[in-house]
Amino acid sequence: PQSKLPHVGTTIFTVIGQLAAQHQAINLSQGAPNFACSDTLVRYAHEAMQAGHNQYAPMSGLPALREAIAAKVATLYGQPYHPDSEVTVMASASEALFSAITALVHPGDEVIVFEPAFDSYIPMIELQGARAVVIKLAAPDFAIPWDEVAARITPRTRMMVLNTPHNPTGTVLGAADAARLQALTAGTDIVILSDEVYEHVVFDGQLHHSMSRYPALAERAVVVTSFGKTFHVTGWRVGYCLAPAALMDEIRKVHQFAMFAADTPMQHALARLMAEPGHYLGLAAFYQRKRDLLVSALAGSRLQLLPSHGSFFLLAGYGHLSDEPDSQLVQRLITEHGVATIPVSAFYGDGTDQRLIRLSFAKDDATLLAGAERLCRL
Amino acid sequence: PQSKLPHVGTTIFTVIGQLAAQHQAINLSQGAPNFACSDTLVRYAHEAMQAGHNQYAPMSGLPALREAIAAKVATLYGQPYHPDSEVTVMASASEALFSAITALVHPGDEVIVFEPAFDSYIPMIELQGARAVVIKLAAPDFAIPWDEVAARITPRTRMMVLNTPHNPTGTVLGAADAARLQALTAGTDIVILSDEVYEHVVFDGQLHHSMSRYPALAERAVVVTSFGKTFHVTGWRVGYCLAPAALMDEIRKVHQFAMFAADTPMQHALARLMAEPGHYLGLAAFYQRKRDLLVSALAGSRLQLLPSHGSFFLLAGYGHLSDEPDSQLVQRLITEHGVATIPVSAFYGDGTDQRLIRLSFAKDDATLLAGAERLCRL
Ligand SMILES: CSCCC(=O)C(=O)O
Ligand SMILES: CSCCC(=O)C(=O)O
Repeated sequence: PQSKLPHVGTTIFTVIGQLAAQHQAINLSQGAPNFACSDTLVRYAHEAMQAGHNQYAPMSGLPALREAIAAKVATLYGQPYHPDSEVTVMASASEALFSAITALVHPGDEVIVFEPAFDSYIPMIELQGARAVVIKLAAPDFAIPWDEVAARITPRTRMMVLNTPHNPTGTVLGAADAARLQALTAGTDIVILSDEVYEHVVFDGQLHHSMSRYPALAERAVVVTSFGKTFHVTGWRVGYCLAPAALMDEIRKVHQFAMFAADTPMQHALARLMAEPGHYLGLAAFYQRKRDLLVSALAGSRLQLLPSHGSFFLLAGYGHLSDEPDSQLVQRLITEHGVATIPVSAFYGDGTDQRLIRLSFAKDDATLLAGAERLCRL
Repeated sequence: PQSKLPHVGTTIFTVIGQLAAQHQAINLSQGAPNFACSDTLVRYAHEAMQAGHNQYAPMSGLPALREAIAAKVATLYGQPYHPDSEVTVMASASEALFSAITALVHPGDEVIVFEPAFDSYIPMIELQGARAVVIKLAAPDFAIPWDEVAARITPRTRMMVLNTPHNPTGTVLGAADAARLQALTAGTDIVILSDEVYEHVVFDGQLHHSMSRYPALAERAVVVTSFGKTFHVTGWRVGYCLAPAALMDEIRKVHQFAMFAADTPMQHALARLMAEPGHYLGLAAFYQRKRDLLVSALAGSRLQLLPSHGSFFLLAGYGHLSDEPDSQLVQRLITEHGVATIPVSAFYGDGTDQRLIRLSFAKDDATLLAGAERLCRL
C-alpha cells in the first residue's frame, strides 16, 4: 500500500541536528535552549514525583494547571476561558496542533496556510484528506496579503492557520491584521488555528496580538501554546490549547485517544511555577537581549539581517553575495565553517529559495558569540 | 460542520474516575497503580533534569533507550530489531497505537477488531475513514474464533488489532493462536497491530506470546508497549513500538508531526532502569500475588470470578444474582457501596452486556482488601 504522506521525509530539524552533531558545529539551528531551565522548576518536578504524582492525570489536564492558564489568559488578554470546558493541557503544542487539525478538518476541506510555514502544518492537513491552500509571504516584511486571502476563501474553507510571533521570520501580527481577519471571517464557520508558542517573546515593547484578545476572533479560534518554549523545557512535552467549548469538545475526543493525558509530574511543577508570573513576564526582555547580542556580534558579517520582532529567530540574507541555494549554503556552513543554521526554503512546500538562512538565538551567550564569529568569516 | 467522531463521548475511565472521586469510593477501576514507583526511578529522572536533559529528545527516541529496548526484546523474544530503524520511543502506548493506525490505515480499509476492546481502537480506525470489522469474544474464555476471522478477511482487510494480555478479560494468546494467525495472514499485506502493554504481567508460569517471538508474524507486526504499566508510572507518558523498517518509516512520519518526541528526562531515567532487568522480570510475580490476594479476599462474595491469566484485571460475573445492566450496577456500587469498577459493556461498541464487571488489582493491598470487603457485602 501507498504512503499516506508520500512527500514527507525526516524533518529539517532532525536532519540539521544530526549533521551539526556529526561535525561538532556551533548550533544555531533549532528553537530549543542550550541553557538550563530554572532550578525551582526542576525541584517542583522532583517534589511532585516524590509525592507520588506519577499516574495518569485527568484527560483534560490537572485542574490547578487549567485554572492557572485561564487566570493568566484573563489577565494578559482579557478573555475569560472556562478552565473546565475551554482549556486543555496537551502533551506539547505539536500534539495540540495535531489534535485540533485532526478533529476539525474533514476530507475535502480547504485550509489556508501561509508560507514560510512550520513544517508540520501542511502534512497534518493532507493527512485528513483535506487541501492546503498556500499563500506565500515574501521577504523582507512577510506581511499577510489580506486581499489575496479574501480572494482565496471559498465555501470549502474550514480553517486558517496563523502563527504569531512567526517561525521562521520573527514577524508579529498587529491590530490591523486582527481587524482584517475579523472582517473576512465574520459570518463564516472558518476556524482560526493560531500557533502562539512564542507568545511571551515579543520585542521592542510591542504587544502580542493573541487571537484570544479579540472576542470576535476568540469565538472561532483554537489558540495553541507551549510550556516548553516559555519555561526552557522543550523536552517536557507540555503545552495547552484554548477554544470555545463546542470546538474543544471535538478536540478532546481526539486528544483522549491519541494521548489520553499529558505528563503528570511536569503538570504539577508547571502549575506551581505559573503562580510566579515573573518568569514569563520577563521572557521578552530575556530574549530581546539575546537577539541584540547576536545582531551586534554579526555587525561585522556580510550577511543582511532582517528585523526580528518576536520568536527565537532571526533571518539573514546572502543573495547579494552569492547565488548558492540556501540548503547548499547551510550544508557548507556546517561542514566547512562549523556553524549550523536552517535554510528558509525548508519552510516552503515548493522549496522557494530567497537566499535566506534562519538563526536561533535561544542559546547561551558564548554559543551566540562563537556562532556569530564563524558567520563573520563568511 | 458535523463531528468526525459523533458517537464518542468521554472515556469510561474518566467518567468512572470522576464518580469514584466524588463518592470517595475505593477505586478498583482504572489500570493505574495507586502505589509508588521505585525511588531509584524518581532519582534517575531528577538527575537527568539536573544534568540539563530538558530539551527535545531525538524524534525516534534516545539512542540509549532504543538500544536497551532492542536488547531486551532480543533476550526475551529472540527477535533482533534494529534500534535505529525498527524501534521508536513514543509518548505513551496510546500515542503509538494512534500513530500506527493513522499512518497505516487508509480510507475504505477494513480493520479487524475483537470485542471486548480497549475503547480507543475503533474510534481511531473510524477517524481514518476506515471500517472496523468487529468480531465478538464471549465469556467465559474469550477465545478468538479463528474460523470466523478467516471468513471475515477480505481484500480490503488492512490490519488486525490484537491485545495480549487482554484488557479487560485477562486472557492471553498462545502458540496455537500464533499458528492460526500465521496461516491466515501469510501472503497478504495485513498488518498486525499488537497491543502488548501488559507484556510483563503474565501469570502461572505461562509465556507471553509476543508477536515479536514469531518471525513470520514479526515481519508484519507493529508491537506496542508501555513503560508506564511496567514501571508503575502511567503518568509519565512513555511507551514504544517495534516494527519492520518499512512500516516504521510511515509510523514515524505521523509521530514526528503529532508529537515530535517523547519526554526527555523520563527517557533518560528509563534507559538507566532498563539496565536493571530485575524490575520487569519480577513484575509477573508481583501482580500474581495481587491477583491472588484479591481472589481470596473475594472468596466470601457471591460474585463469579473468571480466571485472569495476565494484565491488571479480573472479571466478575453477577448474572446469576440479578439482571441489572452492568453500567447500572457499577453506578450503584460506587454510590451505595463505595467501590468503583468498570462495566464490561463499555468495551463493546453495541453495549453487549454479559453482566460482568472489571476489577483492577493494580492497587496496594489495603485497597484491594477494602474493595473486596465492600464487594462481599453485595
Ligand atoms: C519540534 S521542532 C520545534 C520548532 C523548533 O524548535 C524550530 O523551529 O526550530
Ligand atoms: C488511558 S486508560 C489506560 C487503560 C487503563 O488504564 C484501563 O483500562 O483501565
